[in-house]
Amino acid sequence: MEESNHAMRPNERTHRVMVGSVPVGGGAPVAVQSMLNVPAADAAGNLAQIERLAAAGCEIVRMAVPHPADLDAFERVCAESPLPVVADIHFDADIAVAAAKRGAAALRINPGNIGGLARTDAVLDAAGQAGIPIRIGVNAGSLDQALKDRTDLSLPEKLAASAVEYAGYCKERGFEDLVVSAKAHDVMTTVRTYRLLSEAIPTVPLHIGVTEAGTQFQGTIKSACGLGILLEEGIGDTLRISLTDDPVTEVRAAWTLLSALDLRRRSPEIISCPTCGRTEVDLIGIAHEVDERLQKIGRPLKVAVMGCVVNGPSEAADADIGVACGKGSGVVFVKGNVVRKVSEDAIVDALIEEIGRL
Amino acid sequence: MEESNHAMRPNERTHRVMVGSVPVGGGAPVAVQSMLNVPAADAAGNLAQIERLAAAGCEIVRMAVPHPADLDAFERVCAESPLPVVADIHFDADIAVAAAKRGAAALRINPGNIGGLARTDAVLDAAGQAGIPIRIGVNAGSLDQALKDRTDLSLPEKLAASAVEYAGYCKERGFEDLVVSAKAHDVMTTVRTYRLLSEAIPTVPLHIGVTEAGTQFQGTIKSACGLGILLEEGIGDTLRISLTDDPVTEVRAAWTLLSALDLRRRSPEIISCPTCGRTEVDLIGIAHEVDERLQKIGRPLKVAVMGCVVNGPSEAADADIGVACGKGSGVVFVKGNVVRKVSEDAIVDALIEEIGRL
Repeated sequence: MEESNHAMRPNERTHRVMVGSVPVGGGAPVAVQSMLNVPAADAAGNLAQIERLAAAGCEIVRMAVPHPADLDAFERVCAESPLPVVADIHFDADIAVAAAKRGAAALRINPGNIGGLARTDAVLDAAGQAGIPIRIGVNAGSLDQALKDRTDLSLPEKLAASAVEYAGYCKERGFEDLVVSAKAHDVMTTVRTYRLLSEAIPTVPLHIGVTEAGTQFQGTIKSACGLGILLEEGIGDTLRISLTDDPVTEVRAAWTLLSALDLRRRSPEIISCPTCGRTEVDLIGIAHEVDERLQKIGRPLKVAVMGCVVNGPSEAADADIGVACGKGSGVVFVKGNVVRKVSEDAIVDALIEEIGRL
Repeated sequence: MEESNHAMRPNERTHRVMVGSVPVGGGAPVAVQSMLNVPAADAAGNLAQIERLAAAGCEIVRMAVPHPADLDAFERVCAESPLPVVADIHFDADIAVAAAKRGAAALRINPGNIGGLARTDAVLDAAGQAGIPIRIGVNAGSLDQALKDRTDLSLPEKLAASAVEYAGYCKERGFEDLVVSAKAHDVMTTVRTYRLLSEAIPTVPLHIGVTEAGTQFQGTIKSACGLGILLEEGIGDTLRISLTDDPVTEVRAAWTLLSALDLRRRSPEIISCPTCGRTEVDLIGIAHEVDERLQKIGRPLKVAVMGCVVNGPSEAADADIGVACGKGSGVVFVKGNVVRKVSEDAIVDALIEEIGRL
C-alpha cells in the first residue's frame, strides 16, 4: 500500500500511467479525451474524425469496438492515428484481448459487463503483455446485482465500492497501470462518487466525467458544474465531457473548462459584457463574430468586448486586448491603453488586426 | 452583530430580504435573476422582454437606468411588470434616489462609482423610506484607487475588502436590507472572492455571478463552473448567469445549473448518451428534437435518449421515461419498463406522446 501524502493535491498523489505518449496522473496536466462516433468498421471515417479532434486539442481518443469484425479497422486506426487510441469494449473479453494485440494504447472495460472477474483476468494478462494501461469504467447501469440490492448504501457508495473492488482485484493480480472511472448522469452523484474514490484509492488516476449529460447546452452546464467542483478540489487526472453532439464540441468544452479553472490554457478567452439598456451598438453580434474568428487562433489570449463606459477598459484591464464600444463606435485597447478608435462596422476587423500584431 | 451558526449552510445563515414578493436569503430558494437589454427608454420593449423572461422562469429582473430621462419609462415598467424590477444605477446617485420613489423593487449601486459614501447616504435614505433593499455590487473595474494600489492583497482580497467596507458602512448607518455582490470575469477570482465574503459577512445575502463571462458556449461553462463550486458549498442566495446573448438564455442556463446541483428543478432534464461507433440511429438528431420539444414542458421530468444496449434502460433506470435505440428502431420505456417499440422515424413523436400520458 503506497502512503498517501495529504499535503499534495489528489491528482499529484496518483500513480502515473502512459496512454501512448500521454501521461495520465502523478501531477501530469489533466488530459483531454473524447470518443469517436463514426461506425467502427469505417477506418477512414474514424481517422478523419481523429484529425479534427487533434486539431481541436484532443489528446486521447476512444473508439468502441463492438464486434470482432471491427478489429481490422481498429488496427488500421491505431496504426495511422496521431493520437493514442483507447479500445472501448463491452460484453466480449475476447475483443479486448485482441485489441491489446492490435495496437490499442489502452483498454477500457467494465468488469460488470465483460463476464465477471474470470474473464477480466484474460484482459489483464493481454494488457500486461502489451504494456498498456486499463481503465476500469463502472456505470450505474451495470452494477453487480448484489450491490444494487444493498439498501444500506447510497448510489455514490455503491458505484465507488464497485470500482474499488475491481481496482483492488487488478492490483492483487499484480496489474498496476490502472485508471478508474465511475460516472453517473446525475451531477451530484458523480461528484460524491469521485470524492469517495479519491479517498478510497488515492493513488489510482481518475478519469472523470458526467455521463449522458445531454445535448450541448445542458451537457456543458452539467459537466462544467460537476467536473469543475471535482477539479477545483484537485480530483481528476483526465476528463471527458460527454455530449450528444460532435465530439469536437466535447474537446472545445473541456478546454474552456480547464481554462476557467486556470488549470490549462490553449485558446483565446473572450471577456464580453452581457449588454443592458446602456448598450448602443450590436454587441451580441460583435461578440459572436469575434468569438467565431478567435476559434482559429490556437494560443491563450484574453480578448475583451465591452458594451459601454461602465464596463470599459478599466473593468477589462487584465485583458491582453479589447474593444470598448460607445454610440456607433469603439476604441481598441491593448493592455488597457487605447490604440485606435473605429466606427461600429470596423470594430471586428480592427480587433482581429491588432491581435495579429501582438 | 448576529451570531453565525456554522452548522447551517451559508445561505441559511443570511438575513432575508424581500425583492418585491421574492425572498432572497435566510434559506429561501436561490432566486434566478436576469437583466433587460432593451434600450431603457423603450418601456413597451422592456415589458415584452420581461414577459419572455417570466415565462422562462426568471424571478427578479434588473433594468439599467442610465439617464434621468429614462425614469418615466422605468416607472411604467415597474408598474406593469409581473416581476420585481431592480434599478441598476451608475455614476448618478440622484437617479437612484428617484428610482426608489418611482417603484423600484430594489436598487443596485456600486459606491465606487456613485460618488463615494456621501452620495451613498442619500441612496440609503431613499431606499429606507421606500422600504426596499439595496444590492451593493462591487466590480474589479471600479475599485477604490488606494485599494487597487495595495500590493499586499490579492484581487479577491481587494474585491472582498471593498464590498465588506461598503456593507459595514450601510449597517453603521442603520441600513440592514442589503445584498452584496463582487463579481469578476475570472472564474477562480470570483470563487475566491465569494468565499472570503461568506466568511467576512456571513449574514449578508450574496448575489453571485461571473461577470462578462462571454457568449453562450464559453459563458455557460465559466458560470456553471464558478457558480457550481460556490452553490455546492452553500454560498449564494440569488444568481445571475451573465451571457452576451438573449437574457432568456441566461435564465435557461440558471435553471439548468440549479437542477444539476439538485437545488431546484423546473424543466425536464434530458439524459442522452454521447453516441459512439455502436450507435445505429441518428441519435444526435433525435436528442436535439426531443430537447427542443421538451422546452415547452414546464415541469421537472427526467427523459432518457439512449443510443444502444450498453446505455439502455438499465443505465437510465431512474429516468421517468426514455427511449433506447437499436438498429433503425427504439423501445420507449417508463420507469424502466418497456411500453412500446417504434421505428426510428416515429421515436420522437412516440416519446412526446407517452410524456403527455404520464
